[in-house]
Amino acid sequence: MNFFKSAQPPPIPAEPVAEALNHTVHPFYPLGVEIVNYLANEKDVIQLLTSFASLVGSILLVSWYGATKFAPHLKASDQLAVLWFVLCGMIHFFFEGYFSYNHTRMGPAQDLFGQLWKEYALSDSRYLTSDPFVLCMETITAIFWGPLSFVMVYFIITSHRYRYPLQAIVSLGQIYGDVLYYATCLFDHYHKSLSYCRPEAYYFWFYFFFMNFIWIVIPSSLLYDSIRTTGKAFKALERMSNSLKTNGVSQKSTANGHIKNA
Amino acid sequence: MNFFKSAQPPPIPAEPVAEALNHTVHPFYPLGVEIVNYLANEKDVIQLLTSFASLVGSILLVSWYGATKFAPHLKASDQLAVLWFVLCGMIHFFFEGYFSYNHTRMGPAQDLFGQLWKEYALSDSRYLTSDPFVLCMETITAIFWGPLSFVMVYFIITSHRYRYPLQAIVSLGQIYGDVLYYATCLFDHYHKSLSYCRPEAYYFWFYFFFMNFIWIVIPSSLLYDSIRTTGKAFKALERMSNSLKTNGVSQKSTANGHIKNA
Repeated sequence: MNFFKSAQPPPIPAEPVAEALNHTVHPFYPLGVEIVNYLANEKDVIQLLTSFASLVGSILLVSWYGATKFAPHLKASDQLAVLWFVLCGMIHFFFEGYFSYNHTRMGPAQDLFGQLWKEYALSDSRYLTSDPFVLCMETITAIFWGPLSFVMVYFIITSHRYRYPLQAIVSLGQIYGDVLYYATCLFDHYHKSLSYCRPEAYYFWFYFFFMNFIWIVIPSSLLYDSIRTTGKAFKALERMSNSLKTNGVSQKSTANGHIKNA
Repeated sequence: MNFFKSAQPPPIPAEPVAEALNHTVHPFYPLGVEIVNYLANEKDVIQLLTSFASLVGSILLVSWYGATKFAPHLKASDQLAVLWFVLCGMIHFFFEGYFSYNHTRMGPAQDLFGQLWKEYALSDSRYLTSDPFVLCMETITAIFWGPLSFVMVYFIITSHRYRYPLQAIVSLGQIYGDVLYYATCLFDHYHKSLSYCRPEAYYFWFYFFFMNFIWIVIPSSLLYDSIRTTGKAFKALERMSNSLKTNGVSQKSTANGHIKNA
């Protein structure tokens, strides 16, 4: 601006100038990043967080009611897994699918999901700039991990033989996507001094770190559960097979014991 | 250049000019992308491809010798799986690990791996520009899928109870990384008209498409094998458990049959 110091520019407020230059004033980082046709959210942050929490709460309540009513035989950990995968299915398919489908129209969006994404994007503006990695990862999440989460619900309720392989696949998919999500962002931050997150700790720690960390912790626990249970099944099968083959009838009860422990 | 048509610039060759401007002339796309301290490869493409093929051939030969000598009990498909995972372990850990470790020094590299990467980068210049996604994906591949491929070799040879869970994990990790690799590149090509690949068909179809497609096809087959085998194991366990519990000794042979079929 020093070039025009002596030119005495007319007192035009910042926003129209920015608009005239085909840029919009916005709160996202890095400063100056282009957000196409940006419009500020109509709802405030309290309204948005309340809406999101209500949605999540409703999904969990309905799932819990469904699980206890239609699958009362499930043990507690499996009921929790049902709740988790219903929530994942809804968030992956509808919320992340919304972003994947509308990634070029995020800036001006004023529907609930659009405003929620714009609030979240204060911690990661890549959601408003069609970042190739974020878009591809979210698209795979919406197309694969979303519907497969619903399949997981069915598999848990029916004790399906493919329950544990699918549980490992969906959980690893979530973990890998999430680790890459963190890693690409932190690499740009530390190596290229390019931050997509506003400087306030709230955005980094609550939106960026914590909200995504949930998809590291729970899938890791479910992946571990899947590996352990599958390993136990193969061990039980091997022992039983050996017992029955080598010792005949006398080993039946031992072999049966192994199955029960599996 | 039309701007300077009448200025008769001194006859300086292109390269020193580019160097003076802190840019180097290079064959990578998109045109003008900055490759820090680029030096052309000392070996030609025939020498590089021969070296790479010899390396891969040696690894496969030694693995095949080792598998037939030390694990002759393995069925053919498991021997092939051993060869595959030795190759994956070597490529992921050493070759992709080289890139991950040296990503800031790729432009001038003249050792064999450096030159191989520069030849490959003709199909994807992101390997010479520390692209965040490519770097993070390759780092995860080198750190996790590389060593875990070697663990897989041990698990296959010992018929370990965790063989099939780990086979699913490594294979899905390879597939997901590869799908994201294709997807981010094609998105930039079609959506942002930004191509990282030279225009010659050879680079796109042989280097970019075919060389990576191997890591879609074989891991998909191994993932399928893992899911199917695990499903069979759970089914066999369930049937055997039911048979033994409800019918007692008379069902022993049937249950045993189920294990054998699993």
